[in-house]
Amino acid sequence: MKLWLNGTIASAGDTRIDPADRGFLLGDGLFETMLVRKGKIAFFEEHLLRLMKSAETIGLGMPYAPDELLQACRDLLQANELAECDRASLRMTLTRGPGPRGLALPAEPKPTVLISAAAGAAAPERLSLATVSPRRNPWSPSARLKALPYLDNVLAKEAAREKGADDALILDTGGMVACTSAANIFIWEGDTLLTPADRGAILPGITRAALLELAPGIGIDMREEDIAPQRLAHASGIFVTNSLMGLAPVSRIDGQEIPAHPMTARLAAAYELLLDAAAYGD
Amino acid sequence: MKLWLNGTIASAGDTRIDPADRGFLLGDGLFETMLVRKGKIAFFEEHLLRLMKSAETIGLGMPYAPDELLQACRDLLQANELAECDRASLRMTLTRGPGPRGLALPAEPKPTVLISAAAGAAAPERLSLATVSPRRNPWSPSARLKALPYLDNVLAKEAAREKGADDALILDTGGMVACTSAANIFIWEGDTLLTPADRGAILPGITRAALLELAPGIGIDMREEDIAPQRLAHASGIFVTNSLMGLAPVSRIDGQEIPAHPMTARLAAAYELLLDAAAYGD
Repeated sequence: MKLWLNGTIASAGDTRIDPADRGFLLGDGLFETMLVRKGKIAFFEEHLLRLMKSAETIGLGMPYAPDELLQACRDLLQANELAECDRASLRMTLTRGPGPRGLALPAEPKPTVLISAAAGAAAPERLSLATVSPRRNPWSPSARLKALPYLDNVLAKEAAREKGADDALILDTGGMVACTSAANIFIWEGDTLLTPADRGAILPGITRAALLELAPGIGIDMREEDIAPQRLAHASGIFVTNSLMGLAPVSRIDGQEIPAHPMTARLAAAYELLLDAAAYGD
Repeated sequence: MKLWLNGTIASAGDTRIDPADRGFLLGDGLFETMLVRKGKIAFFEEHLLRLMKSAETIGLGMPYAPDELLQACRDLLQANELAECDRASLRMTLTRGPGPRGLALPAEPKPTVLISAAAGAAAPERLSLATVSPRRNPWSPSARLKALPYLDNVLAKEAAREKGADDALILDTGGMVACTSAANIFIWEGDTLLTPADRGAILPGITRAALLELAPGIGIDMREEDIAPQRLAHASGIFVTNSLMGLAPVSRIDGQEIPAHPMTARLAAAYELLLDAAAYGD
């Protein structure tokens, strides 16, 4: 496998992250994960915009221009022979780079940009969730950013797996439904589609934003609101979304079966069309 | 500077963190920072015990025995000519090591252990705090561990510096006093010493634990309890603690002067004696 690191493509074995990198030592950085279908990067512009905005929020400068990063992604897909692949993924990581000991920001930061590519990224047919104890913090700046600190999510997913489920249902500190370990959640109540309101405890996903725009256009009544977990038991259908999976129906939560809602497939089909329109490729 | 990485001491420039390391990609790891005075590592046993317990909590195996790690620390201090240094610090980082894409735990994890040493670690004479908006989450497993995700703390400290203070006063999501960006906090009310109760939102510091044991022994009435931030304005004195600083008095909070409490110096002197007793050295 080859990686792109600060302008250079090299084999993973020849690519070195500095042991003083604040991404490694403090989780001081951000990332984006993007779906690639036959060389076309879905929502590249949206991912890059989120990364740039988030970088600004945490006072981190992105040392490359958007077109340089697009070219870097394309070059890396080529170098890994993934440009013709049905489904692949790209991950772009931006950190504050190496720094001296301590939390204080380095006087002259030299950010690290690492891009990796992987084949695959198959969406699960249906997945099961289990409620776990870690909760999302609306007071955490990094909760609403796609930031490196994912340990709570790693532990949430592992706790769910120990309960026999595929992924975690994570609440916020107020006890409302937030997300899974790496996806936003959507709930059908009848033919109304609900998703947790963005009050700082969820990552506002690219797919989530796309559905919020898309759903009303195809006649779906959609709302963002606070959702108590008790309501999930009466849902007419539930699915989760992220950039790699797209829409993935939820089959069970805490062992209770969740019905399949016919509109999920219709929305997924409309999303597929949007994906093609929003893709950057050659 | 030389580093110890998985059993090998080499110059920092020759030390490579794998770009697939989950510490770098997901903040999936832990660390300890230890004070070294003239080659003696303060509270080595306590730091290692916390690291081992935390590793167990997150399902991560430490691949080295305590005596191997102690020897590694000593060797690294020697290699960096810090064994005779008045004050130095060691940082031990343990991550889940390289893994494939995604959050799921690697089937056969190869943890990364990195140890670095630095000269210095001078304690500030007095420091000022400013209340910031990020809050600590008692529902976060990583909040109560010395885990790699420090981005919220980095941002909290930076927000405090923008307000002209040295560090951040961080509350928990319930609005109670928690800590600073990297230290526990202690409040004198008359001659009673208070520190926020450990309800999951604070890191239970090694120095904090030492003071909880030490204070009653020298006749100080000490309690852990929930502390509303309004109480700080009426404090008879405030100090913060961590392993590198020891006890550091707080001079101001949000611009308001905090009195110096005579017992802080007495407690600091007792702590210095304890440090010597609790140190591992040659």
